[in-house]
Amino acid sequence: MQLGKIVPKNLAGFMELLPAKQIIFDSIVNIMKEVYSKHGFYSLDTPTLEYSSVLLAKAGGETEKQIYRFSKGATDMTMRFDLTVPLAKYVSMNYNELIFPFKRYQIGKVFRGEKAQKGRYREFYQADIDVIGDGSLSTINDAEITSIIYEIFKELGLYDFTIRINNRKILSGFFNILSLSDKCNDIMRVIDKIEKVGIEKAKDELMLLALSSTQINEIMDFVCIKGTTEEIIDKSNLYLNKDTDFDTGIAEIKEVLYYIDVFGVPKKNYTLDYSIARGLDYYTGTVYETTVNDFPKLGSVCSGGRYDNLAEYFTNRKLPGVGISIGINRLFDALQAMDNDIFMRNSPIDILLIPMNVEIFEKAICVSRDFQDAGIKTQIYFEDVKLAKKMKYANKINVPFVVILGENEISENKITIKRMEDGQSSMITLSEAVGIVKSYKRTVLY
Amino acid sequence: MQLGKIVPKNLAGFMELLPAKQIIFDSIVNIMKEVYSKHGFYSLDTPTLEYSSVLLAKAGGETEKQIYRFSKGATDMTMRFDLTVPLAKYVSMNYNELIFPFKRYQIGKVFRGEKAQKGRYREFYQADIDVIGDGSLSTINDAEITSIIYEIFKELGLYDFTIRINNRKILSGFFNILSLSDKCNDIMRVIDKIEKVGIEKAKDELMLLALSSTQINEIMDFVCIKGTTEEIIDKSNLYLNKDTDFDTGIAEIKEVLYYIDVFGVPKKNYTLDYSIARGLDYYTGTVYETTVNDFPKLGSVCSGGRYDNLAEYFTNRKLPGVGISIGINRLFDALQAMDNDIFMRNSPIDILLIPMNVEIFEKAICVSRDFQDAGIKTQIYFEDVKLAKKMKYANKINVPFVVILGENEISENKITIKRMEDGQSSMITLSEAVGIVKSYKRTVLY
Repeated sequence: MQLGKIVPKNLAGFMELLPAKQIIFDSIVNIMKEVYSKHGFYSLDTPTLEYSSVLLAKAGGETEKQIYRFSKGATDMTMRFDLTVPLAKYVSMNYNELIFPFKRYQIGKVFRGEKAQKGRYREFYQADIDVIGDGSLSTINDAEITSIIYEIFKELGLYDFTIRINNRKILSGFFNILSLSDKCNDIMRVIDKIEKVGIEKAKDELMLLALSSTQINEIMDFVCIKGTTEEIIDKSNLYLNKDTDFDTGIAEIKEVLYYIDVFGVPKKNYTLDYSIARGLDYYTGTVYETTVNDFPKLGSVCSGGRYDNLAEYFTNRKLPGVGISIGINRLFDALQAMDNDIFMRNSPIDILLIPMNVEIFEKAICVSRDFQDAGIKTQIYFEDVKLAKKMKYANKINVPFVVILGENEISENKITIKRMEDGQSSMITLSEAVGIVKSYKRTVLY
Repeated sequence: MQLGKIVPKNLAGFMELLPAKQIIFDSIVNIMKEVYSKHGFYSLDTPTLEYSSVLLAKAGGETEKQIYRFSKGATDMTMRFDLTVPLAKYVSMNYNELIFPFKRYQIGKVFRGEKAQKGRYREFYQADIDVIGDGSLSTINDAEITSIIYEIFKELGLYDFTIRINNRKILSGFFNILSLSDKCNDIMRVIDKIEKVGIEKAKDELMLLALSSTQINEIMDFVCIKGTTEEIIDKSNLYLNKDTDFDTGIAEIKEVLYYIDVFGVPKKNYTLDYSIARGLDYYTGTVYETTVNDFPKLGSVCSGGRYDNLAEYFTNRKLPGVGISIGINRLFDALQAMDNDIFMRNSPIDILLIPMNVEIFEKAICVSRDFQDAGIKTQIYFEDVKLAKKMKYANKINVPFVVILGENEISENKITIKRMEDGQSSMITLSEAVGIVKSYKRTVLY
């Protein structure tokens, strides 16, 4: 860099995109907002900074290490590391103003000072939805959430993805049946890691929990049951009527699966999977993970579940809920690697309007206003440079159409429109041009 | 609060809205995004946290006091306090990847640890646009920016607002003519405060700068010239041909005003005002302030201007630009106090679909899918409670229509739709209901 200048650079693990990429990131966010809001979820925007005492109300050791925490004056503050604790705070604070079931979405940045490495971000977007009940909450919400996951991934242009569903009561009930109630949460954490570490390593870890090989094999056989949802439930029927938790879990999952079908989620996009455990003790019923099948290494890109108490550290009220969270940055990286269709959309405008010289600026502004009024996004190129440089600009911004306005066009009361895709160009009237651009916008995704 | 619970609370100066208000805040943001992007501005999203050395490259004493700055490990970090320094960093870092003129908008939170007081926020949204040239930049951009300000305020439902425009070269040239070149920036800062402190107080402050009463009176007479833009320029003609800066300023402002008119900004919404100085030395040409006439005390809600060098502390390249910044939180507070039309829009959905009992859930889901497919945002009420409680929910969420589905409706293959505005209710077919809701959406803003 130049002498005496400060070197401009970003902190490691903080994503910052070039303009064309940012448009795509924004369109992913917009798809999520659209789907969430059309199902009746209110948007929420909580502060980036909160009292440490609030954010860390429930946090354990790992969280404490990763957070951005500091003091200003006498105030101990932390940057939010998820959107769940702020939701718990919000619902507790505003209980009397809210109407339940309270459906909210929040899409915002969270901050985790993890070790920076490829594909890991220290600042990243989470897109969360939750439905919170006051005392109770219908299980059908668990099915609707599944249909929302489906809708979002479909809208993102993904087809080969699997929403893997389970119910934690089935697992905990099953461990009860094996007389392992006291080790339930520890076993769950091992089950949760099977995909990452493999079956043999998981078995070793269960050994460390002092389980017998018979118990270990029975657990592995159970969590690895494969088949259609009906087949999986059938195969686990032999454990029925031995434990209330287990029976409740099976009844709940049957209802959820039934309604998932009613909501129109195709069978190929969801599966019952007893190996889905989610690490957090927080979850008490339905749990979800979503895998993009072309990117198994990505892990789950959309996870969540049902919980009994959103905010037990803030209030005695029972606030059960169900929710999911999508980490957008990693999903964005994956979509990019897939050459997904949405990456076609990367110009903010439809037309770049090029006046041939400064005398034509006034006319160009009038023409641009006509295009704008017809709903066509139009930018005028104002700099007084050679035509070649103007066209280079058009190419770089990846605009679908260039409209050229010169003396000839003005004398004939027409414009020249050039489709950048194939270079095809013609001199036509403004209203004809409006028609062409509009029909292009209807057929092409950009 | 309850025993043993942590009290949920927010830091002072951090806005957090109830759901109905958040919808309106979001729609303000969306209006801005829409207008910015349709004029060819790319969206940008820079990190919330940056190296202190980068963010404070140019900052002076006041900024240092207000920032949220802390260390994690060996890294000295600061939360961004505006969107201009991050832009300068971004353009310097990515110069070779960008195409100029580079038009970007950024809407994001900034953080300033100011003394908390009513109407002042420590975390607030700024909505910035800038056009950056490489070496030079056409003055017409200054006019287009004015038309964008106009468009945004009009879209926000504001009519009585004034964009006040000036050119800093006119002021500095005028001070040169009075042989006050060396005190130029100090005088500008006093002029900038006239509205806040009044003319007499401003005169006192000019006295402290050791100006003669003749000079002070001449300055005051000049900056207080009133009239149409043509009259104001005419009245200042007597200073022409005495100073290059002054003459350039007058020529530039004439061109900008000419094109503002071409862009279609009504004369009642902008004015030439020689008392607009902007405090920052950064600005070198056109400057803007925007006042909402019903809320003079609010001060300027949209300010900015033309500068010669965006990023002189990062690079030797000359990057002139023009931009504006809107502080959304204070604007939101003002709109709220005005009972603005956009405050009508506060439900995320069009229809709340109420199945009379749990047996009807399946049918309700199918009906909701039909509404959704027709582009109507529909939420189903799933909780198994009395109808009165379901209707109370509908009222609270301020939804325009309720659709009721019971045994009667199903046997007749119809639905009952109730318009919440006037309570009018009728049993009709689904496609008739789609028509009613769609025509309502076309005529009513919500």
